[in-house]
Parts: sequence; C-alpha cells; structure tokens
Amino acid sequence: MVLPSVLAYSDLVAAGFFAASGALAAAEKRLDILGFVFFGTLTGIGGGTLRDLLLDLPVFWISDTRYLWVCMALSALTWYLAPMLSARRRLLLWVDAMGLSLFCVLGCAKALQNGAPEVVAVVMGVMSSSFGGLLRDTLLGRPSVMMGREIYVTAALVGAAVYTLLISLAPISASVAMVLAMLAAFTLRAGAIARHWCLPSYRRLGTDPLDE
Amino acid sequence: MVLPSVLAYSDLVAAGFFAASGALAAAEKRLDILGFVFFGTLTGIGGGTLRDLLLDLPVFWISDTRYLWVCMALSALTWYLAPMLSARRRLLLWVDAMGLSLFCVLGCAKALQNGAPEVVAVVMGVMSSSFGGLLRDTLLGRPSVMMGREIYVTAALVGAAVYTLLISLAPISASVAMVLAMLAAFTLRAGAIARHWCLPSYRRLGTDPLDE
Amino acid sequence: MVLPSVLAYSDLVAAGFFAASGALAAAEKRLDILGFVFFGTLTGIGGGTLRDLLLDLPVFWISDTRYLWVCMALSALTWYLAPMLSARRRLLLWVDAMGLSLFCVLGCAKALQNGAPEVVAVVMGVMSSSFGGLLRDTLLGRPSVMMGREIYVTAALVGAAVYTLLISLAPISASVAMVLAMLAAFTLRAGAIARHWCLPSYRRLGTDPLDE
Repeated sequence: MVLPSVLAYSDLVAAGFFAASGALAAAEKRLDILGFVFFGTLTGIGGGTLRDLLLDLPVFWISDTRYLWVCMALSALTWYLAPMLSARRRLLLWVDAMGLSLFCVLGCAKALQNGAPEVVAVVMGVMSSSFGGLLRDTLLGRPSVMMGREIYVTAALVGAAVYTLLISLAPISASVAMVLAMLAAFTLRAGAIARHWCLPSYRRLGTDPLDE
Repeated sequence: MVLPSVLAYSDLVAAGFFAASGALAAAEKRLDILGFVFFGTLTGIGGGTLRDLLLDLPVFWISDTRYLWVCMALSALTWYLAPMLSARRRLLLWVDAMGLSLFCVLGCAKALQNGAPEVVAVVMGVMSSSFGGLLRDTLLGRPSVMMGREIYVTAALVGAAVYTLLISLAPISASVAMVLAMLAAFTLRAGAIARHWCLPSYRRLGTDPLDE
Repeated sequence: MVLPSVLAYSDLVAAGFFAASGALAAAEKRLDILGFVFFGTLTGIGGGTLRDLLLDLPVFWISDTRYLWVCMALSALTWYLAPMLSARRRLLLWVDAMGLSLFCVLGCAKALQNGAPEVVAVVMGVMSSSFGGLLRDTLLGRPSVMMGREIYVTAALVGAAVYTLLISLAPISASVAMVLAMLAAFTLRAGAIARHWCLPSYRRLGTDPLDE
C-alpha cells in the first residue's frame, strides 16, 4: 500500500533530480540565478515533455504546475547551495544518474499504459530519460555525459527493458517491477560513475586514410 | 481602436525580427542564400512552434502562410543588405532583443487565452521567446546570447510576468497591458546590451579541487 | 503497378539511410554499440518525427514498429561493418544524401496529402529532411553537413519544389513525380559531394571593425 503512493511522487522526484543537474551545469557556465532556473527547469521537464508530445498526451507540467514549482525551487536552491558544495561535477553525474534511473522506467510505463507496443515503450523510456541531459549539455555547450566511455544509454535501456519484461512475464505488481527496474538501471549507471564500467567502444581495424 | 489592430501584426513583426537575427547569424558562418533563408526561417518560427506544440494548438505557420513568407523575405533581404551594414553583431543583438520583447508577452498571452495557469503562461512566454535564439545559436555552433553575463532570460521573465500581473490586477485593456509589458522587457534587454546591465553571476566560494 | 509498391517502402529505406549516417557519426566519436543504436535511431526517425508533430499526425514509428527495427538493425550492422570500410566520412555523406533526397519529397508529399498549402509543404520537405542530420551533428558535437560550402538545403528545396510543381502542373502520376523529384534532389547533392557544387557564399564588402 505504501509503495504505490511513494511511486506516485517518483515523477516529481525525477524532475527535481534533473533540475538540480541542469542548475549544476549552469554553475559551470557562471550564469545568474535566472539562468540556473531556466536551464534547471528545461532539464527537469525536457524528457517528459518529449515523451508526452510523441505519445500525443497533454504535456504533464501544463496540467500539473507542481512540476514547474519543484524544478524552479530546486534550481534556485542549487544557486544558494552550490558554492558550499565540493565536487560539483561528480554531484551532477549522481543526480543525473538518479533522474535517469527513475525516468527510463516511468517513460516506459507511461508508453505501455497508453497502448504503445513493447519496443516503442522501451525506446520511449530511453529517449525520455536521456533527452533532458542531452538538452542540458547541448544548449550549455558542455561535453555531453553521453559521449563518455562509461555506460549511459545502456543503463536506461536496461531499466526500460527490465520493467517491460517483468510486467509481461513475472507475477508481481507494477510497483515492485518499477522499483526493481529502477534499481537495475541505477546500479549499472552507478558502476559506470564509480568504477568506470563500460562496454567495448568502437575501434577501427586496419588503416583508413580518409578517416580523421 | 488603433492599438489592437497594430498588435494583431506584432506576432508577424516578432517573427520577422527573429528571422533577421537568424540570417545575420548565418552571415557569420558565410552560408549561401538558402542557408540564410533556412536558419532565418527556423529562428523566426522556432519559438512559436514550440509554444503551439506544447499547448496542443495547430502550429501557427501551417494555417497562416504569411509567417513563412515574412521570414523568408526578411532572410533573403538580409543576404542582400548585410554586406552594406556595419556592426552586424550588434544589430543581431538588437533585432533579437525586439523579437524577445514581443514574443515573451505574446507567448504568455496565448497560453493564458488557452486556459493555462499563470505560472505555466509565464514559463511559456520565457521559453517561446528564447527558443528561437537558442536554436539559432546551437545549430549554427555560435556562442549563445543566453550565455553572456548580460540580462536575457530575466527580460523575458519580466515581460511575461508584468503582462500576467497587469491582466489580472489592473483595470486596463489587454492591448495596453501588452504594450507596457513589451516595453518593460525591451527596456531591460536594451540596458543589458547598451549598458551591460546584469544580475550577479554565480561565483564559487572557497576552493574546489574537483571543479574545473 | 510496380512503382507505387516500391515507393511504399521508400520511407523505410530513407530512415535506414539516415540511421546508417547516424551510426557512422557515432563511430567518429568512438561510442559503444548502444551509442551507435541510439544516435542511429535518433537520426533515422528525427526528421519524420518533427514532420508528424508539426502536422499533428500520429508519430509514424509509434504506430508502425518496423521503422525502429530497421533503424536499430542498420545501426548495429554499422557497428560490425564500419571497421571494414574505408572512407567512412565520405560514406556518411553519401548515405545522408540518399536519406535527404528521399525524405525531402516524402515529407512534402505527406504535408500535401494532409491539406497543407504548397509553401508549407515545401518548407516541411526541407525541414523534415534536414532535421535528422542537424540533430545528429549537433548532439554529437561534430561540424554540421549544413555548414559546408557545398549545396545541401538547396537540394532538399529543389526536391520538394519539383515534386510540388509536377503534382500540380504535369499530367503524370504521383509515383513518377516522386521519383523524378528524388532524382533531382539527389543529382544536386551528389554534384555537391563529388564535384563541390555550391552557390555563392556570403562575403562582406568593405571593412567592418565590429564584425569578427
């Protein structure tokens, strides 16, 4: 009984994590407080907005203004707290990881609820969870977290795929499936941040005079 | 009687200003005339397109082709006129400022007309007025006007907030509220361009070995 | 009889070409296999997704999952084949050119079918065919194919305009018009890649102390 009501807030929590990551990225660029709020909010609502547009649903933060307030509050809070924090770059990676783990499952679940085929739901989970961070890094002109060697897309894919599999195959409730899938995604991404877990990256074989 | 009919064209005028700013940015990259028209049109219609998609309204330039013609004509005109102008960088900032001041109020007003809550309308005004410039600078790979020290988001926020406040509190017509709000936004941004008005930017306190 | 059924697959083929171009761009950044699939799929479906959102149609890859499978399969295949290929940069330009030539006509045709005015349909053809490549280059932080001196937007414009003209003026079937327009676009872009065809690029006259 407790789990579903906790999960009802997970969307809000995920938006808040991403908003904090956007505000921390704004700190790197030495923006003013409204720059923090702008990029924090954009990062917090970006992925879910894409998801809702693609699924042709009403955009979530237009009907429910709590999302905007949470994103704006957390971005402004980051403005005040950031100077007191050390290791802001690593903190950015960790809040981004938490947002990613929640959103990849939530995006996938929302797509399934609206009748999308499994493969579409998994793609929606991956895209909606990574889009906020892509926007943040691209618009702020910083190296994207997705370009690193460490696992990123894979974690989102695993979260979405685990949820889809558990829902269709296992005799467990949606809430339990959700928590397990979020944990799977977070574990992978945490290993990537803390221990540099990665998949083999592309290497070319032989010589290629026209490449580079 | 005159004011409302002038304001009926303000959307078109704002799109034209942004189109000119996009074409001036294309000039920096030495594109051909169709590059001017492409990026000019994209900048001119980008913000309003985002607004309409988010509000689930028909995209404005699909039902009313005047927007495309104005954007394409002004971009092409910029191609011919730009070599005769001096100080194109500053001109870009000024036409961008005029587009910003008009669009932040118009985006906010359109959101309010469609029943959005106040906070959503203000966010919509800020996002729709800054999105065209963000697209222009990001896609052309130039330093974003939003990354400067000077006030930018703040001006859009003030324009949208002033309009929302006047509409709900003051006993004046929507047209007068619109003009006052546009002037407020423009004054702030003009001060930012001409006199480098800015808010305090983020500075870190203490040392942070993992930052940078 | 044969032509329409071949053309029924052209959308799928175009998505596949763009997916391959996205995966080849991921190779430049040495991403892992899921990075290839992510950026390949994004590039493959990006332009058509924008088109469908703007026209307020259901997003094509949500109702028909073949698009996702084709994009993911071609991206994964590129991961295995790329090390064996020479001249990957040029190959990227060629598959991008094929995607562009097909999508500029298909995007324009879909807009016309849904009742858009001619000028909107042409703009839709240009935007939907170039958006995938813009996303690919912007998100991966590589120099955009649109920033080169060679003809790019022009080829898309010619493809869309030729199709629109033939459909309204010439006594030929839509399929024949489509093939002719695709050939026109491809010929122009092929000349740009192979023989550096270009329009005059912008040059400033006189001196401009505030420029640069």
